[in-house]
Amino acid sequence: MAVYTDINEDQLKAFLAEYDVGTLLSYKGIAEGVENSNFLLRTTGGTFILTLYEKRVAPEDLPFFLGLMDHLSQKGLSCPLPVTRRDGGNLGELAGRPAAMISFLDGAWLRKPQAHHCREVGRALAAMHVAASDFPIRRENALAIGGWRPLWTLSRDRADEIQPGLKDEIDLQLDTLESAWPERLPEGVIHADLFPDNVFFIEDRLSGLIDFYFACDDVLAYDIAICLNAWCFEADGAFNLTKGMALIDGYEAVRPLASAEAEALPLLARGAALRFLLTRLHDWLITPEGALVVKKDPLEYLRKLRFHGQIGSSVEYGLRDMERAS
Amino acid sequence: MAVYTDINEDQLKAFLAEYDVGTLLSYKGIAEGVENSNFLLRTTGGTFILTLYEKRVAPEDLPFFLGLMDHLSQKGLSCPLPVTRRDGGNLGELAGRPAAMISFLDGAWLRKPQAHHCREVGRALAAMHVAASDFPIRRENALAIGGWRPLWTLSRDRADEIQPGLKDEIDLQLDTLESAWPERLPEGVIHADLFPDNVFFIEDRLSGLIDFYFACDDVLAYDIAICLNAWCFEADGAFNLTKGMALIDGYEAVRPLASAEAEALPLLARGAALRFLLTRLHDWLITPEGALVVKKDPLEYLRKLRFHGQIGSSVEYGLRDMERAS
Repeated sequence: MAVYTDINEDQLKAFLAEYDVGTLLSYKGIAEGVENSNFLLRTTGGTFILTLYEKRVAPEDLPFFLGLMDHLSQKGLSCPLPVTRRDGGNLGELAGRPAAMISFLDGAWLRKPQAHHCREVGRALAAMHVAASDFPIRRENALAIGGWRPLWTLSRDRADEIQPGLKDEIDLQLDTLESAWPERLPEGVIHADLFPDNVFFIEDRLSGLIDFYFACDDVLAYDIAICLNAWCFEADGAFNLTKGMALIDGYEAVRPLASAEAEALPLLARGAALRFLLTRLHDWLITPEGALVVKKDPLEYLRKLRFHGQIGSSVEYGLRDMERAS
Repeated sequence: MAVYTDINEDQLKAFLAEYDVGTLLSYKGIAEGVENSNFLLRTTGGTFILTLYEKRVAPEDLPFFLGLMDHLSQKGLSCPLPVTRRDGGNLGELAGRPAAMISFLDGAWLRKPQAHHCREVGRALAAMHVAASDFPIRRENALAIGGWRPLWTLSRDRADEIQPGLKDEIDLQLDTLESAWPERLPEGVIHADLFPDNVFFIEDRLSGLIDFYFACDDVLAYDIAICLNAWCFEADGAFNLTKGMALIDGYEAVRPLASAEAEALPLLARGAALRFLLTRLHDWLITPEGALVVKKDPLEYLRKLRFHGQIGSSVEYGLRDMERAS
């Protein structure tokens, strides 16, 4: 739950004076988002989210994140729009932290998404990829495959505390993925963290995507692989083929996959599972108590990793057999 | 920070079907309130606070709390108004907990209140006392003076862990207060927890009182004594006479104190300091980690307790010397 930094009325008043949003009516810390401090803010000019960027976000990345939201909004994608300050920028400082106001997006994230929601998610993900294709700023993915081994080194010696044999198993998976990782797939801006809590719905209609603070340049189909992990497994660990099919179908309705992308999905999904396993392991084993991290069960992603290792073809995720561009 | 129970869309939809508030647009857990789970809810019908009552609130007290807010709102006091359900009641069940929707109140609580804010607080407190005078339901104060010794017994043996000599000091204070506690002062419904985070302001105007979940029947002037403790000390521990004067003046502009009330203030303020010292000690020493409690520094209230013990007359709090009803 995320209010790491409280703010007082004097600080907030000075911050708001840089915006043309009227008088402050209320602000409340909200218990969502795990990296930053977030407040729901009401002024006579509207409702906003105020975000104070805590130390897990690099200040030099903020023009990319805020610029991307701005770019996607201009293209008609429903996502938070950074509010422009009187000085023409969209980034300020509050309580010693970089801070921005973004528009409030109606909708709630689904605790129990169904297959038809997955279809909407696939559609929105593809629409984001298309809309971002001419976004001019670049941001390298620090958690791309090249970043996994250094991350793994930090928890490797203690991995067997979580489950005996885990060290050897991850060693093997990482070796395999590094040697087999697909190259020359279409790249672009990916969301990289499109979990259910980052997709809002109003009733059954997708109302918007939020939290672009992991967005970066990487393989587009890898973003689908992340979503397969995040949306298509049931609480008991089973993969839900109907959801997988809906997600991929929704994606392809907007941006059909080339044959190389379609073929790469099992490896990409395995990689995505390993990436979340490694960050969860690190948070679990290494990150000190009290840091800005919500610790989540690493073993959920070990089970997903094993599942993807058994997949022979993307058809098993629900990909349709069709003519594809090579 | 307070979201102890998350809710899913199916539970929420079923709950909202009992209300005439339109379609759900969003709900977000909010990081305020320490006893219950609170969500800020937007529907096509308006903005609301949804509260799930956790186990620290006794379900049999809810008709008192919700009825009081309803009563005060009808009398024109600005406080949250419970939303009426289709069945005519204002209490439902959600995720296995009693739950209610109340109107959203604009305003923000002050992290740095000034003397003129204290005047508004005094005024609003008196207005609440007057407005509640014909509220028909009774609720005994479990934390009235009769409840202090049983509470003290739970932490007494470990009090010296906090500060050597604390056990003897509190023993003495409690003996003194029990033998000298004023009787036959005017009683009525008191808020009993009117700390800064329970009073909203829009700019410098008080916009409402919230969180009536400690409200009960007790000595009215004891509520002023709580506010003197909560509003009129600076961060360095010093009592701010200007704030005390403003608070009492504001109160007396609406409800002048009788002479017995005026004379009793030092004892009442000492009692209020002891009451918060005892609950903080209990939370600090006895309450298990992970319980629904935010632990706060007990020694802040030891310093206040000592201060009140040195007060000779209520004039030292800022009370004006004037003709009073006997």
